Amino acid sequence: MQDAAKPHVLVLGGGFGGLWATRALASAPVRITLVDRTNHHLFQPLLYQVATAGLSAPDIAAPLRHILRRQANVTVRLDEALSIDLAARRVALAGGELEYDFLLVATGATHAYFGNDAWARHAPGLKTLEDALAIRSRVLSAFEAAEREPDPQAQRRWLEFVVIGGGPTGVELAGTLAEIARHTLPREFRRADVRSARVHLVEAGPRLLASMPPELSEKTRLQLRKLGVEVHTGQPVTAIDAEGVTMGGMRIESRTVLWAAGVAASPLGRQLGVPTDRAGRVPVAADLSLPGHPEVFVIGDLASVAQDGQPVPGVAPAAKQMGAHAANVIRDRLRGVAAKPFRYRDYGNLATIGRMAAVVHYGRLKLSGLLAWWFWLVAHLFFLIGFRNRIIVLVNWGWSYWTYQRHARIIVGRDPPDGEA
Amino acid sequence: MQDAAKPHVLVLGGGFGGLWATRALASAPVRITLVDRTNHHLFQPLLYQVATAGLSAPDIAAPLRHILRRQANVTVRLDEALSIDLAARRVALAGGELEYDFLLVATGATHAYFGNDAWARHAPGLKTLEDALAIRSRVLSAFEAAEREPDPQAQRRWLEFVVIGGGPTGVELAGTLAEIARHTLPREFRRADVRSARVHLVEAGPRLLASMPPELSEKTRLQLRKLGVEVHTGQPVTAIDAEGVTMGGMRIESRTVLWAAGVAASPLGRQLGVPTDRAGRVPVAADLSLPGHPEVFVIGDLASVAQDGQPVPGVAPAAKQMGAHAANVIRDRLRGVAAKPFRYRDYGNLATIGRMAAVVHYGRLKLSGLLAWWFWLVAHLFFLIGFRNRIIVLVNWGWSYWTYQRHARIIVGRDPPDGEA
Repeated sequence: MQDAAKPHVLVLGGGFGGLWATRALASAPVRITLVDRTNHHLFQPLLYQVATAGLSAPDIAAPLRHILRRQANVTVRLDEALSIDLAARRVALAGGELEYDFLLVATGATHAYFGNDAWARHAPGLKTLEDALAIRSRVLSAFEAAEREPDPQAQRRWLEFVVIGGGPTGVELAGTLAEIARHTLPREFRRADVRSARVHLVEAGPRLLASMPPELSEKTRLQLRKLGVEVHTGQPVTAIDAEGVTMGGMRIESRTVLWAAGVAASPLGRQLGVPTDRAGRVPVAADLSLPGHPEVFVIGDLASVAQDGQPVPGVAPAAKQMGAHAANVIRDRLRGVAAKPFRYRDYGNLATIGRMAAVVHYGRLKLSGLLAWWFWLVAHLFFLIGFRNRIIVLVNWGWSYWTYQRHARIIVGRDPPDGEA
Repeated sequence: MQDAAKPHVLVLGGGFGGLWATRALASAPVRITLVDRTNHHLFQPLLYQVATAGLSAPDIAAPLRHILRRQANVTVRLDEALSIDLAARRVALAGGELEYDFLLVATGATHAYFGNDAWARHAPGLKTLEDALAIRSRVLSAFEAAEREPDPQAQRRWLEFVVIGGGPTGVELAGTLAEIARHTLPREFRRADVRSARVHLVEAGPRLLASMPPELSEKTRLQLRKLGVEVHTGQPVTAIDAEGVTMGGMRIESRTVLWAAGVAASPLGRQLGVPTDRAGRVPVAADLSLPGHPEVFVIGDLASVAQDGQPVPGVAPAAKQMGAHAANVIRDRLRGVAAKPFRYRDYGNLATIGRMAAVVHYGRLKLSGLLAWWFWLVAHLFFLIGFRNRIIVLVNWGWSYWTYQRHARIIVGRDPPDGEA
């Protein structure tokens, strides 16, 4: 099925960047190998719903092989890239070696603790399905521990939740946790007063959703407050331990702290021979290729791209556009045509807050509340991969909407959360 | 909400036995504590579908608290029973101690390796959601490893699957694995010939489904063969290692071995002061109480009950009936009425084999093939707890039926299967 004489395009990472690049090369005269550490493409924008028990893991993930089954020029390989030899044009993987004619590095980003790696244990982040399932277990187990705990003070610590980071993920997590405590769980507990649970959203900067216009940040704060979230802005966290969070002069005693504050680019970026930026991202040429290596492209969250003096944001649409662009450059190159520079087209910015509340920003358009929420819902269903997933997610959302229930409230995994009996 | 003056019924285990007992005590003048190690009731008859990627974990599990939210006389507690003090009427839990007036021990069974505990590592069993997710990852990872493996002999070992145990679970697993290899995956792999995968079903006894009439065992064997399963009966396994299975003089080289052969009752049974049977089950009095302790009941898979010279089988309907019976005995006891002996009503026996094939046995009725499959499908949907789950499972089944796809083909968990690179 694959012609060994054709140039070999090696794509590292099956996220939005890598998958869109692969698809855009469907009819190109190349053979492609797509390598990912997992067997699935993950729809990250809905990952927080898996973490908060609204959706099951398979609802927002699809096997890469299944997505690409009809694209005959692709071989999908479950494997992990360990190192890149730019001179020899070769990548060492955990399960072997692969040579390439073109390399696309699209390994994304992970959460980062700004040098405080000890915090990871107490404040898990949210980037993979495993992370989401671990957070789901931790949150649900906290309510269970509260129900079991006879000492009121200890019980209180199980009913305090802290989300660190006021970006979209932090806002989504905090809003949904408040909903769970207020609407989903109360009548099911007999001893713990679940309604008294408090959700804190902590942001180091002056406002939530810093990439949005200030008025939408304010709307977000108000809507979160209505849901029962206590928002703390201008509060850089200075310590996290098993018993709580310290920020500035303030301390919150809590057994459940979630991290949505920082990301760092994949460590593979540091092997590309160019100085990376503070977050570990790789500065690229105008066509997204690596300076000095026109056969290597860096795309998605791992790439540092500036446009009109602004950095291109680390969001799904940007990754998809970079993937498609890198694919076009390869096609042009093979036909001997000069490559065009990448231009990011901003299709707007949206974040959901909770039940029927969201904010949308597109050019001069600024929406909040119910209309923004409908906009968010339709956009996310539309972009979700797989017709079946769309139906299932729609049924689940409808169900949650009417009943306030969240069907995936299943604690799986043998490790009890940190410090639990 | 709970009156401390009322007798306290402590139920250990939220499976079919414990949950049905709890529900049957809804209007009784008692306060109930239901303790389970997990936060959910699991619909075990469909567990093999989670293990084979047809359903998501939350589709077949519901939080115990949610199921019992309207039953005001119950407190649900996520905890683990460690030991029972019959004289003091007290149970030690991992998270505290509880006294009881009535105790229902319904902690079920787990898989057993007949003294060969070293096999557990190479041949995982299927009893919990964690087991199912681990098997799902192992099976899917085997196909991925085959695709990656350049050596044909090593690749072959990744394409051989062995299921040990010819009871309902073994038959279901083997039939579904064959379906996956033949219909679900082939066009998605480029290097491994997935259609050449072989599924072996190994049974020590002379026939499959020993609890069914011999003619249905034979029908099952024929239907499995049509699906591509190689059935080996009369073959007791003598060794299992990372590279395969030895039985009698025969050896199958395989990297993926699943255990569906033996169960052993919960270790809690051995603390009840009576000699247990070979499988660790507790012999009970006619009313299901523990001999010498009329306030303690043992129900479900943990109880050894004989009726008309036959053991009552370890199946969900038997556990439910025992649960309801123990509840009735408690009610009668509180009213000063003499307890009636337990009678098991056999509502028949059914097992599914694969796509549109099943066997049903009820009294003189013996069905196989498509009709039996419809019977199986309707019965399982009917008994599944939760209206939402029924809808979602029906959508998933319809989808799988038309497309041959299995939506939950997501490898989650960081541990690679045994021996994988």
